[in-house]
Amino acid sequence: KSSYNITLLPGDGIGPEVISVAKNVLNLAGSLEGIEFKFKEMPMGGAALDLTGVPLPEETLSTAKQSDAVLLGAIGGYKWDKNEKHLKPETGLLQLRAGLKVFANLRPASVLPQLVDASTLKKEVAEGVDLMVVRELTGGIYFGKPRGFGTNENGEEIGYNTEVYAAYEVDRIARIAFETARKRGGKLCSVDKANVLEASMFWRKRVIAIAEEYPDVELTHMYVDNAAMQLVRNPKQFDTIVTNNIFGDILSDEASMITGSIGMLPSASLGESGPGLFEPIHGSAPDIAGQDKANPLATILSAAMLLKYGLGEVKAAERIELAVLNTLDRGFRTGDIYSDGNKLVGCKEMGEQVLKSV
Amino acid sequence: KSSYNITLLPGDGIGPEVISVAKNVLNLAGSLEGIEFKFKEMPMGGAALDLTGVPLPEETLSTAKQSDAVLLGAIGGYKWDKNEKHLKPETGLLQLRAGLKVFANLRPASVLPQLVDASTLKKEVAEGVDLMVVRELTGGIYFGKPRGFGTNENGEEIGYNTEVYAAYEVDRIARIAFETARKRGGKLCSVDKANVLEASMFWRKRVIAIAEEYPDVELTHMYVDNAAMQLVRNPKQFDTIVTNNIFGDILSDEASMITGSIGMLPSASLGESGPGLFEPIHGSAPDIAGQDKANPLATILSAAMLLKYGLGEVKAAERIELAVLNTLDRGFRTGDIYSDGNKLVGCKEMGEQVLKSV
Ligand SMILES: CC(C)[C@H](C(=O)O)[C@@H](O)C(=O)O
Ligand SMILES: CC(C)[C@H](C(=O)O)[C@@H](O)C(=O)O
Repeated sequence: KSSYNITLLPGDGIGPEVISVAKNVLNLAGSLEGIEFKFKEMPMGGAALDLTGVPLPEETLSTAKQSDAVLLGAIGGYKWDKNEKHLKPETGLLQLRAGLKVFANLRPASVLPQLVDASTLKKEVAEGVDLMVVRELTGGIYFGKPRGFGTNENGEEIGYNTEVYAAYEVDRIARIAFETARKRGGKLCSVDKANVLEASMFWRKRVIAIAEEYPDVELTHMYVDNAAMQLVRNPKQFDTIVTNNIFGDILSDEASMITGSIGMLPSASLGESGPGLFEPIHGSAPDIAGQDKANPLATILSAAMLLKYGLGEVKAAERIELAVLNTLDRGFRTGDIYSDGNKLVGCKEMGEQVLKSV
Repeated sequence: KSSYNITLLPGDGIGPEVISVAKNVLNLAGSLEGIEFKFKEMPMGGAALDLTGVPLPEETLSTAKQSDAVLLGAIGGYKWDKNEKHLKPETGLLQLRAGLKVFANLRPASVLPQLVDASTLKKEVAEGVDLMVVRELTGGIYFGKPRGFGTNENGEEIGYNTEVYAAYEVDRIARIAFETARKRGGKLCSVDKANVLEASMFWRKRVIAIAEEYPDVELTHMYVDNAAMQLVRNPKQFDTIVTNNIFGDILSDEASMITGSIGMLPSASLGESGPGLFEPIHGSAPDIAGQDKANPLATILSAAMLLKYGLGEVKAAERIELAVLNTLDRGFRTGDIYSDGNKLVGCKEMGEQVLKSV
């Protein structure tokens, strides 16, 4: 009987609600496959700031590091928006990613047949979209140095950051992306701005070098401005996209909105070894927090990614994925994905319905 | 009788076709308003590379600088795609922008009632969209130093760029944006990534400082990832957007695709003084070059922006804008915006039809 230690980071806003539902689903799916979980809940984000004065307490990071996988709810809220940089919930998240060394962020965006109407795109454009953004998560302009404030040679005040990639950073994310594409449709599109930026020219050069290891995957390149257009024009053309941290931030959010149901979308962040970090892509939604209105499906599907990518427990993962589809088939919808003729339910009830189908 | 010197830069691909049509329209609209134009055509982009070995010959730049306004077709093509950086058509464009010091790029994206079906967005989401992206064009990561290739402290190969803004750069683009918003719906949304980047924190600080000069304009701030989502979810929420060079590159292209008719969209790039640069936002479309299939309306509307923003000739500008609407009303469409029940025409014929309505 396998047993795993899972760190739960409920965080802020709707985080605690969706984590509590996802925990129950994990437990049931696990027990049906002979898997046991030991959960440890730790403070993170605004909740940690209020409790300990920092957004990522050392104990939270060390617990996370020692566990087999980390499931995060959501972080942030108006209350901490004006905090100085090192006291922002977001800074805690960046520290967690860096601390766990999870450099590969996998963000699927697919339009489920049951939810095609939720997209703002025309039905014929939205239906069948099924793409994966592989975003580099611990490098680039998010972490590059030098960074800060100062004055230039004319004595003018300036603010600056550095976009920088080293060969090993591009190589390892490229390999993850090629592996991902190989398991999917076999097509990888690398997005950069190599017509302007040296960092992008370097990125492209390394991606092309790594491509030799994957002759079976079809590699294309696209400029980021064009990619932002093509996601609106014809998102179905994409299978797997690989890109840097900041372009991935922008494009994966755009791609998720194209599905129309960001309350449905999970993500996985993986490193070379050590525990992965799994989280819904939606935010902490402070406006509906504590009202039992949140959609827990993104976190439930993140739990499925945790099982599949984090623990290699594919059967339990598939149980959860099928249970979610089945629950949608039975017409249950939270407010964000509700449409006429379906049954409007809250966060808890949605969780109960998924449990019935696991 | 006013007389102006206009530099025409036809460039590559469909550039020469659309410029020739737009020139005729400019001439007619001008003559009806008592305006005379002296045109000088100069090589630029791939055409200049083939002719002179550089993408922006000195003579082209000096002619452009001495003129009253510059109208550009499009640049680039497969032929020069593999060129080294300093021999890319795109590099010529960046040199032209820097040389003319046109730091403010205005990119309107509106959905015309006649073309609402061209959008991949649902009708109710697309109709009525009318926004303006004000993009900083001569600073940020496009021009920031240091940049290049090298090795890091571990001897690993790296590629890097610098995102940097000085106070005066943010201040002047912010002022243009506030002025623009004031003439439009009175709402300005500044887009940044101030939860992560110092350059963005600095950007936001300066925008807030400049806002004091414009108490009548409503200023909001949005993170770039959220903006990429909101443009898909509900583009009507935006009036005027101001953002940095790279985010503006991505978001203005996304916004233009939301209208579904990028063959319709013009742009203006303005400096403190000196001639402005006006160009369609579409590319050189090498696949349809020389086949009389290009949509000349984006370049014609760029000529209208040239009259309005470049020369202050508002009446002649309005003549052109109305002529374009009238031509659409009469059902003329190039292939890119064609829909059932309309009349399919080529580039030249579209130009003739616009001339009839000027
Ligand atoms: C909260 C923020 C720091 C974060 C990011 O930019 O990476 C978020 O937008 C995301 O994509 O997970
Ligand atoms: C061709 C390229 C250098 C240019 C840019 O990135 O600015 C283009 O994409 C644009 O937006 O005008």
